[in-house]
Amino acid sequence: MTQNLSAAPREDGRADDELRKITFTRGWQDHPAGSVLVEFGRTKVLCAASVEIGVPRWRKGSGLGWVTAEYAMLPSATNTRSSRESVKGKVGGRTHEISRLIGRSLRAVIDDAALGENTIMIDCDVLQADGGTRTAAITGAYVALHDAIEHLRKEGAVKGNPLKGSVAAVSVGIIDGVPRLDLPYVEDVRAETDMNIVMTGDGKFVEVQGTAEGAAFDRAELDALLALGEKGCADITRLQRAALGLDA
Amino acid sequence: MTQNLSAAPREDGRADDELRKITFTRGWQDHPAGSVLVEFGRTKVLCAASVEIGVPRWRKGSGLGWVTAEYAMLPSATNTRSSRESVKGKVGGRTHEISRLIGRSLRAVIDDAALGENTIMIDCDVLQADGGTRTAAITGAYVALHDAIEHLRKEGAVKGNPLKGSVAAVSVGIIDGVPRLDLPYVEDVRAETDMNIVMTGDGKFVEVQGTAEGAAFDRAELDALLALGEKGCADITRLQRAALGLDA
Amino acid sequence: MTQNLSAAPREDGRADDELRKITFTRGWQDHPAGSVLVEFGRTKVLCAASVEIGVPRWRKGSGLGWVTAEYAMLPSATNTRSSRESVKGKVGGRTHEISRLIGRSLRAVIDDAALGENTIMIDCDVLQADGGTRTAAITGAYVALHDAIEHLRKEGAVKGNPLKGSVAAVSVGIIDGVPRLDLPYVEDVRAETDMNIVMTGDGKFVEVQGTAEGAAFDRAELDALLALGEKGCADITRLQRAALGLDA
Amino acid sequence: MTQNLSAAPREDGRADDELRKITFTRGWQDHPAGSVLVEFGRTKVLCAASVEIGVPRWRKGSGLGWVTAEYAMLPSATNTRSSRESVKGKVGGRTHEISRLIGRSLRAVIDDAALGENTIMIDCDVLQADGGTRTAAITGAYVALHDAIEHLRKEGAVKGNPLKGSVAAVSVGIIDGVPRLDLPYVEDVRAETDMNIVMTGDGKFVEVQGTAEGAAFDRAELDALLALGEKGCADITRLQRAALGLDA
Amino acid sequence: MTQNLSAAPREDGRADDELRKITFTRGWQDHPAGSVLVEFGRTKVLCAASVEIGVPRWRKGSGLGWVTAEYAMLPSATNTRSSRESVKGKVGGRTHEISRLIGRSLRAVIDDAALGENTIMIDCDVLQADGGTRTAAITGAYVALHDAIEHLRKEGAVKGNPLKGSVAAVSVGIIDGVPRLDLPYVEDVRAETDMNIVMTGDGKFVEVQGTAEGAAFDRAELDALLALGEKGCADITRLQRAALGLDA
Amino acid sequence: MTQNLSAAPREDGRADDELRKITFTRGWQDHPAGSVLVEFGRTKVLCAASVEIGVPRWRKGSGLGWVTAEYAMLPSATNTRSSRESVKGKVGGRTHEISRLIGRSLRAVIDDAALGENTIMIDCDVLQADGGTRTAAITGAYVALHDAIEHLRKEGAVKGNPLKGSVAAVSVGIIDGVPRLDLPYVEDVRAETDMNIVMTGDGKFVEVQGTAEGAAFDRAELDALLALGEKGCADITRLQRAALGLDA
Repeated sequence: MTQNLSAAPREDGRADDELRKITFTRGWQDHPAGSVLVEFGRTKVLCAASVEIGVPRWRKGSGLGWVTAEYAMLPSATNTRSSRESVKGKVGGRTHEISRLIGRSLRAVIDDAALGENTIMIDCDVLQADGGTRTAAITGAYVALHDAIEHLRKEGAVKGNPLKGSVAAVSVGIIDGVPRLDLPYVEDVRAETDMNIVMTGDGKFVEVQGTAEGAAFDRAELDALLALGEKGCADITRLQRAALGLDA
Repeated sequence: MTQNLSAAPREDGRADDELRKITFTRGWQDHPAGSVLVEFGRTKVLCAASVEIGVPRWRKGSGLGWVTAEYAMLPSATNTRSSRESVKGKVGGRTHEISRLIGRSLRAVIDDAALGENTIMIDCDVLQADGGTRTAAITGAYVALHDAIEHLRKEGAVKGNPLKGSVAAVSVGIIDGVPRLDLPYVEDVRAETDMNIVMTGDGKFVEVQGTAEGAAFDRAELDALLALGEKGCADITRLQRAALGLDA
Repeated sequence: MTQNLSAAPREDGRADDELRKITFTRGWQDHPAGSVLVEFGRTKVLCAASVEIGVPRWRKGSGLGWVTAEYAMLPSATNTRSSRESVKGKVGGRTHEISRLIGRSLRAVIDDAALGENTIMIDCDVLQADGGTRTAAITGAYVALHDAIEHLRKEGAVKGNPLKGSVAAVSVGIIDGVPRLDLPYVEDVRAETDMNIVMTGDGKFVEVQGTAEGAAFDRAELDALLALGEKGCADITRLQRAALGLDA
Repeated sequence: MTQNLSAAPREDGRADDELRKITFTRGWQDHPAGSVLVEFGRTKVLCAASVEIGVPRWRKGSGLGWVTAEYAMLPSATNTRSSRESVKGKVGGRTHEISRLIGRSLRAVIDDAALGENTIMIDCDVLQADGGTRTAAITGAYVALHDAIEHLRKEGAVKGNPLKGSVAAVSVGIIDGVPRLDLPYVEDVRAETDMNIVMTGDGKFVEVQGTAEGAAFDRAELDALLALGEKGCADITRLQRAALGLDA
Repeated sequence: MTQNLSAAPREDGRADDELRKITFTRGWQDHPAGSVLVEFGRTKVLCAASVEIGVPRWRKGSGLGWVTAEYAMLPSATNTRSSRESVKGKVGGRTHEISRLIGRSLRAVIDDAALGENTIMIDCDVLQADGGTRTAAITGAYVALHDAIEHLRKEGAVKGNPLKGSVAAVSVGIIDGVPRLDLPYVEDVRAETDMNIVMTGDGKFVEVQGTAEGAAFDRAELDALLALGEKGCADITRLQRAALGLDA
Repeated sequence: MTQNLSAAPREDGRADDELRKITFTRGWQDHPAGSVLVEFGRTKVLCAASVEIGVPRWRKGSGLGWVTAEYAMLPSATNTRSSRESVKGKVGGRTHEISRLIGRSLRAVIDDAALGENTIMIDCDVLQADGGTRTAAITGAYVALHDAIEHLRKEGAVKGNPLKGSVAAVSVGIIDGVPRLDLPYVEDVRAETDMNIVMTGDGKFVEVQGTAEGAAFDRAELDALLALGEKGCADITRLQRAALGLDA
């Protein structure tokens, strides 16, 4: 790893291991059981958790619940307008990939048996994109999921606690040889290596997805990125707890 | 028309010819040339106007511009979650119909020649639905369109003024025999007759779409609804001008 | 409203408030319960009403029937060949919009409870298009629906009379400032304002859809169009009754 | 071949080698260059030949023309209503297969070089189905193609004669061991073997498609069907020539 | 028939009525009940027969089984890469046509009642194409079907023998006036007439599909092709029996 | 990490850090510039690299080449038959995700400028699935890509060497607390954590994708999996070099 000690400072003035300003607006929408507008700087994702009684056919009679997710981006969310997937008539590969990632990440903290035969559908709609939309989506989706489950518990629709823990996610990358946390779009497009890390609130990994965008990376670089991700997820976990009014 | 003089007051306490609280948040998004979050009570629609150089193939070489619109609803916007059209792989009839209505309404105040061979795409994404989403969309889209055109003019991309006037829209309906303005969802589902009216700022009609939901309506009822729509559109026009900082 | 008193006479020699020659050929097809070829001048629409036992899933157990419609146009029906929607793999916005309009119009005269849990599917296939295809479709579909219901009643499949009245439709428009009834294609493309009016046999409105094609229209113009539409629908109602052999 | 000498007579009273009543109504539609309503008994197919200047991309610059076909069936054409392919969003296998067959059959009598870089699209829309729709479609399409080419020649759009000959088609089958010509639906569903034969006016084969529906067939049965098909196509050729006003 | 006695010999040195080298590799895959890699020269088709308990909805309760087929081609199988149908989002006409042909051919030797309410799905995936893929597919599919049925019988899932006979297929064509058996790609593209013949092991016809590619063909040519097809199918039947270890 | 020292031995008798038998059959198909059948135990993937002159529209005029991939699975490849994506009319999320992974992995070793404006399309079709299909696909695709590029170089279609290095991939996972290399299906479904690692021949990472299937994993477990992946990729690199006849 050739670390460039004289790297230019970040455009937004943050330290290399510092998150953007992250906010959670709970109850942004009236209808879903949980609805959170999460913002990572200028990235805005509306995360809604809707509860449906029953589970998909292949899971019927198992006594187990199901949590799944759909990610999408408004055409107007991006720098230059992107075309609408409903109009194109098909969901693109990137959308599919991220929807699946969000679903897996949330299922990692769900006790399917405690949920019972209920389905929670998580919709993550990106209203504005400035890098890190998938990690913001996971982070906000957890808060919406939490609220939806509290709603179910208050209504007596589930007995125990289907939520086994919390989950947070962040992007990290190497820019001009320097590992940095929580990349906005201008850094993301310049990153040599880009990694998305999803962790539980107690510091374990749920997903690690690292991609060499420009050049392959060595083990030392990988270790530096993992450390930065661990730090970022721990910070985000604290913000999630604060937003939910839980004692840190 | 059997007007029920003892009709129950409106649930939200409004007079029959009174609009819900309408707000316009301009510049809600950073990327599009015009971006407005319009709220009619609890109905929230994000309207974005994106400019593209060039026009669709069938209009090339005409010297004329083009304005078109796409309407959509977030799955989480409705009372019970609706399925995502991109996932279903096709745009539904209602969505098509409303997208076309918005496009036609805005084109009524556009001078195609002054716009030149530029396309303005209007995206109207319903973030929360509580009745009147299509009329809120047209109303907000006009403000976004205005901002996008101002942007084009400042940049010198168009010379004259492609905007010939303003456009506003409102829903009216007959509930228990009483004509009412600007129906929220609870009134909309109970309406015997439902009408959407689109008018220019100088009081002319662009679209009149009346539908007998329960029973056919007579000419007197139609006239009452038209009068109410004229009143509502005039009120909305004033609010649009105020939001745009134009002297009323 | 600037009425152009010296407007050129209509190309087909009709008075401004005169319908084209309208004919109904009942029983044009052998298989459907009702089948009518309706002609408005050179516009030809084949309307078929097919009966199915049972209703869509969302209506099961309600004891209520369902009437719905599908409109389509043969590729060879238009001036220049249009492409086939099945080959394109999707139904276009205009097609969707008209199918929905036909369905709503017919449901306005149906007593769902008297129909019982039966579905009547109305297919309106345009064999030749010369303006006014949607209003011809509604007009012919009513006759086909009538025949299908008579068939059901003869078979004893329904007890009372699910048909509460009749429905007719016509287009009106303003050409060179003159309101005209029942526009053929050459007038339709030149109309400043275009309105489709659907009325019951007893003179009430079911649908009013007015669109400013060129310039917005004022209330006086709207009133003139409504009056013309009322006159046209009354005339068509008489022709429908004659075609059905009912005493006028 | 076990020929059942005591076979019941045909329901419609025809001899085994006799065609149904075949009629051609030329100019049924106003817009296409050629438009023919062909009837084989109760089977009605509307065949339209539309001319477009230019050829598909893969054929550009070759100097050669192109003839292709699309076959479809109205939902109301069949015994029990069939669902609409545009609504299903895809063209079915049977439709594809027949469209391709019609296209190949007509191309057999076309001189691509004489046609020049023009495309003729043949639309065959079945308005009523009573067996033999694909063979009726080919038979009628030839007449529409003839008229479209005459139209091109009159306009001077082509120089020589792109039509090298005529083409006719008929179905044959074995019912209760008896070979029969031109099967209506009631015979078609009972046929052990079903064959569609397409021939040129000078007695050569263009397509032979035989299918064992119930039991495999031997060479003698095949020969009997071929002979019957040859007879039927010769009869149809005479009817085509008469309809076109050519001296037999 | 103008037979060209001085025709150039075949590129691969075969006699005109000689098959390419045909091999069957049974059990090529581990999972399906029957799996056969069939090779006709350089044409390679992987045929798999998978058994599912139950039948499609329209056949439920009939006591009868169902055999159906899906044919497809790898993009890399052809001379120049062809695009992937899943990516295009629709199955092409040729693919549909061949899938239907394979299904019909196999059903000709199936006793539906003996099969009981089981479905056998035949997948024929062309791994390399050098002409005659559809006839190779039918030929190999029969062997895979045989193995799947033996598997069902060993497991006691069916009682009697659902297989009433064997089925084989071959292509024949006329090249430079000479009828030839089993055409590779280089001959296929030059053939004036092309015929696919499907026959049972006891010498009866299941399908005969002849197409004039260049010029229409006369009865003598047709007879010559049929004779060649009969010869080829008989040869292939012997090879199938040998591959299955049945006494010839 | 709780390592279960008494874990049962692997079903196939391998050591925990031992690969399955891996074979490469080069030139399996005749048509593509590179074609390799790669086998990892019972997993068989046919990898084809086809060259096309030119690049996608968005890359035209850049002077740079493009490498992309499509992954698919035969319906008959899996334990129980899976449905065909072309028939379903859409590519599933998993397929999309893997196609994108393969493309990115190969692009990591491509010098776009040296390739020039040529496109190499990699098709990876799984003929039999027994775990690790995506890593086998990447591994085999590299060999096919190598052969395609050699072909281009021999033909003089590219000047320098567009291949900057080699790429190999392997799956690792934790089964009953024990990290294991190259998981077959029976281990894959039981893995608590599953990781796919893609590395260059000189030991750098291209992709790291780790997923907690059952329980989140800690940093020690992650490190163990990374070490195992590094070992496996190094072993596979040697096998690739041997298959390509390069001096190890």
